Amino acid sequence: MRSDVLADHMLRGFYIGRFQPYHDGHHRMVERIAGEVDELVLGIGSADDSHTRHDPFTAGERIMMLTKALEDADLVIYPVPIEDLDRNAVWVSHVQSMSPTFEIAYSNNPLVVQLFTEAGVEVRQSPMFDRERLEGTEIRERMIADDGWEALVPDAVVDVVEEIDGIERIQRVSETDGADSYRADTTADPE
Amino acid sequence: MRSDVLADHMLRGFYIGRFQPYHDGHHRMVERIAGEVDELVLGIGSADDSHTRHDPFTAGERIMMLTKALEDADLVIYPVPIEDLDRNAVWVSHVQSMSPTFEIAYSNNPLVVQLFTEAGVEVRQSPMFDRERLEGTEIRERMIADDGWEALVPDAVVDVVEEIDGIERIQRVSETDGADSYRADTTADPE
Amino acid sequence: MRSDVLADHMLRGFYIGRFQPYHDGHHRMVERIAGEVDELVLGIGSADDSHTRHDPFTAGERIMMLTKALEDADLVIYPVPIEDLDRNAVWVSHVQSMSPTFEIAYSNNPLVVQLFTEAGVEVRQSPMFDRERLEGTEIRERMIADDGWEALVPDAVVDVVEEIDGIERIQRVSETDGADSYRADTTADPE
Amino acid sequence: MRSDVLADHMLRGFYIGRFQPYHDGHHRMVERIAGEVDELVLGIGSADDSHTRHDPFTAGERIMMLTKALEDADLVIYPVPIEDLDRNAVWVSHVQSMSPTFEIAYSNNPLVVQLFTEAGVEVRQSPMFDRERLEGTEIRERMIADDGWEALVPDAVVDVVEEIDGIERIQRVSETDGADSYRADTTADPE
Amino acid sequence: MRSDVLADHMLRGFYIGRFQPYHDGHHRMVERIAGEVDELVLGIGSADDSHTRHDPFTAGERIMMLTKALEDADLVIYPVPIEDLDRNAVWVSHVQSMSPTFEIAYSNNPLVVQLFTEAGVEVRQSPMFDRERLEGTEIRERMIADDGWEALVPDAVVDVVEEIDGIERIQRVSETDGADSYRADTTADPE
Amino acid sequence: MRSDVLADHMLRGFYIGRFQPYHDGHHRMVERIAGEVDELVLGIGSADDSHTRHDPFTAGERIMMLTKALEDADLVIYPVPIEDLDRNAVWVSHVQSMSPTFEIAYSNNPLVVQLFTEAGVEVRQSPMFDRERLEGTEIRERMIADDGWEALVPDAVVDVVEEIDGIERIQRVSETDGADSYRADTTADPE
Repeated sequence: MRSDVLADHMLRGFYIGRFQPYHDGHHRMVERIAGEVDELVLGIGSADDSHTRHDPFTAGERIMMLTKALEDADLVIYPVPIEDLDRNAVWVSHVQSMSPTFEIAYSNNPLVVQLFTEAGVEVRQSPMFDRERLEGTEIRERMIADDGWEALVPDAVVDVVEEIDGIERIQRVSETDGADSYRADTTADPE
Repeated sequence: MRSDVLADHMLRGFYIGRFQPYHDGHHRMVERIAGEVDELVLGIGSADDSHTRHDPFTAGERIMMLTKALEDADLVIYPVPIEDLDRNAVWVSHVQSMSPTFEIAYSNNPLVVQLFTEAGVEVRQSPMFDRERLEGTEIRERMIADDGWEALVPDAVVDVVEEIDGIERIQRVSETDGADSYRADTTADPE
Repeated sequence: MRSDVLADHMLRGFYIGRFQPYHDGHHRMVERIAGEVDELVLGIGSADDSHTRHDPFTAGERIMMLTKALEDADLVIYPVPIEDLDRNAVWVSHVQSMSPTFEIAYSNNPLVVQLFTEAGVEVRQSPMFDRERLEGTEIRERMIADDGWEALVPDAVVDVVEEIDGIERIQRVSETDGADSYRADTTADPE
Repeated sequence: MRSDVLADHMLRGFYIGRFQPYHDGHHRMVERIAGEVDELVLGIGSADDSHTRHDPFTAGERIMMLTKALEDADLVIYPVPIEDLDRNAVWVSHVQSMSPTFEIAYSNNPLVVQLFTEAGVEVRQSPMFDRERLEGTEIRERMIADDGWEALVPDAVVDVVEEIDGIERIQRVSETDGADSYRADTTADPE
Repeated sequence: MRSDVLADHMLRGFYIGRFQPYHDGHHRMVERIAGEVDELVLGIGSADDSHTRHDPFTAGERIMMLTKALEDADLVIYPVPIEDLDRNAVWVSHVQSMSPTFEIAYSNNPLVVQLFTEAGVEVRQSPMFDRERLEGTEIRERMIADDGWEALVPDAVVDVVEEIDGIERIQRVSETDGADSYRADTTADPE
Repeated sequence: MRSDVLADHMLRGFYIGRFQPYHDGHHRMVERIAGEVDELVLGIGSADDSHTRHDPFTAGERIMMLTKALEDADLVIYPVPIEDLDRNAVWVSHVQSMSPTFEIAYSNNPLVVQLFTEAGVEVRQSPMFDRERLEGTEIRERMIADDGWEALVPDAVVDVVEEIDGIERIQRVSETDGADSYRADTTADPE
């Protein structure tokens, strides 16, 4: 909940990530944002990707992670899956049409910052970007090894991952990571 | 909140509609469903359509309608936009991947019922379907006339529609409904 | 099998239809074509449509109908699903890329004839077009009534339809054919 | 060329139509717009549609019609094909990304007017919309009859249509306009 | 033809590959599968890709390879092109809708195995996967050098490749494999 | 303007590139082509890509670059955006439908040459390909450093780039070029 007591109108923020999975780095970001807005839209990017080393979880599974991890937060959240249109020029319009109206976008991703800026939407950044990015890759690697990933994500996320047999899935699909094709682990079309 | 006190595990339902707009017919359906489940996914169909007589509101606007209208309901809800893939054969898989896991689907739409049935998902129907369908068309017509639509939707929806100048929009885009093309009011490409 | 004994090279024909379902009208067409070619590609159009009154069967189900109905024909056939690209200007190239090479196209559909003609592909027509078209619509109506459709299709098709509970499916999805939307029976997104 | 001599900076307009074909109604509109801008972008809508009664000509053919008809106009023009994304919410962004920057949009199409208005782009209307729309439908009907269409289009357009055998094409594809399917004349997938 | 004489019902298998080209490794796999099923669906993955170093042949060309190479096999086969939907979550439904019904899937590709497993479809694996994958890459490299590829594919495939000037094609398109873009050899859009 | 005085009919050429940005290498190519044709279609490939290190500019911005750089050329030009269909097999048909009719294609890109050759379209090559390709990558790198890029592009292009704040954009979006994902700089979906 925002702490600016002079505010007399509702302020909604927007924060997008792939959340593969939703982890402590994201959680810290949300906590910081919560002090500045009343409500927060959590855009789940690459909503149509799943079952790969890079994007193991479906949009529905990520909605569950977000919702349960933020159940007790003093903040109204909207987890919204955002499909890839692969057209950067319309990305902001697309995101705006899929989401409740928001006034402030939060991101450190330079492309996201550039697109919002060109569209005239206020963007706030934080120096924590690298921390978020590295944690995601690190966590997935630890999941493949099934060793030490639980320490980097909220408990609720551990529950969801275990419920969907997520470790087994990411291990299985990562075996596809062979020499033949850069697409080896994003598609089900083998040799 | 479900009233079956013998239940010892969480049951989640799924109810899909276009919600153009979310109205009292939908609301009554949700209230009935609430007695049977703990949580409810509200699939917002044709998420990519907007600005037409048939589908005036964006997915984001419909998320706001649902969320605010059900703010005080004793039910955890998940408003989830579902994009059209135009492939009925994969529709159930698509919906399942975009949504938190659900056990029961609620629908009276025969196609939806058939698809879920073929996929082995439990579907529950109600005799209220026609009431829901007719109300949607009726409400949009009243919105175009800006006369009497407020009585058929929750107060929260009135607020959202007024906030986004929804009446002016549906009136404007309905003027496109001319003789030339069946697509006249779904596309911005004129003669 | 083609009857032109002077032929010394392999001639392949191409015949496209939606085959919803494959019926006696199609069968008569194939029999006539068989006298002119050695092999025949059967393009299954609108391969991505299914579960509607207009297109009840999936591409896979139609492949089974064609294959079984033509099991004993003295003709090598290739049932090939052709997805809709919704771009008439590239339709011929698309069909050619999805199909074994063919020299002659068979169709009475004026659009198909025009596209092949513009592309320089030889097209042969027959006056039987209306018979084929009318039979398709008639057969689906009879299926909805579950009365008299068996007489208009090969026995093998009756078997396939019964195996997949096709009558129940087309009956169920046709109930969606209501007043609200032209799309009512092609999509699973209700009111 | 714009006649506002006080202007000291370059003003570019945007006018979209399907131009099936580019006709005198469009030409009169362009002439009026020419008095208000220095340059004009002519958006060719539904660029991916062709070979139908409603949309007989390809984008390339329409580019030729526009270019030749406006060869001697005292106005710099940009014919730009605009593909359908079937997403009204991103339509303005899409058009802006495909087009040289423009300051003023010209349209009478209510949907186009609404979308530009919501996006904050200045839109100018004219009472001539019906004239343009009716002429397009009328011209295509006359083309099918090959009687009297030449009088309603610029001479350059007559040349292009004859060069591409456009009359034969629209006549042929219009034969598909039968009873079976609403899509009969937009797709090459027959019964 | 399956050798299990106690079987009293028809069993159909499903085996997917890109078959670029269909080679001896695939052939050995098909021979082994033939001992377990009555009929076999051969899914041709990435059906929409062609003219690249990684995917040189069209779906139609691959259908010819498969059909001719298995002409004399004691097994009913269905070569079915499967287009990429780039949505792993619906891949199994998609494949099932495009294919005649099958009971057993054969694959060693971990992603394919995972997707079928999650969908409850029986999957059988073999230790030969690496052999298949390596042969495909090796064969295409030998084709580029036009040296020694014939020894690794069935004679019928040699005929098809020569008929379509396949060696010249893969040599030409592989020249695009330069430094500028990872997409250099998959798209016709150069610098 | 073509210099072959014996020509008595209009000859149109086709030259495709991404033009990111339009530079001196392209300009020299156009100048050479101008001696052989009357009119030239400039296909702008990957029209739907923008805001990345590899493809920084939108189709509309590239149309402006081309038009202004060739304002005084003695050659009629048609800048035409060509969207990616990701289907090489229909690429030529697609390009032909989007473009005014052309007789000769100019390209050094081996894939483009192969596709046009298979389609029976005359292709002319030049040894300058590497020069064009290397300049594009070099120029974008210099733009990121904002040092020395102006010398490699026509003055008109410098104007356009400065007008759209192109240097700031390519610098900003190139910061996304990190370790996590090959897609990092083509999509707005971060970790």
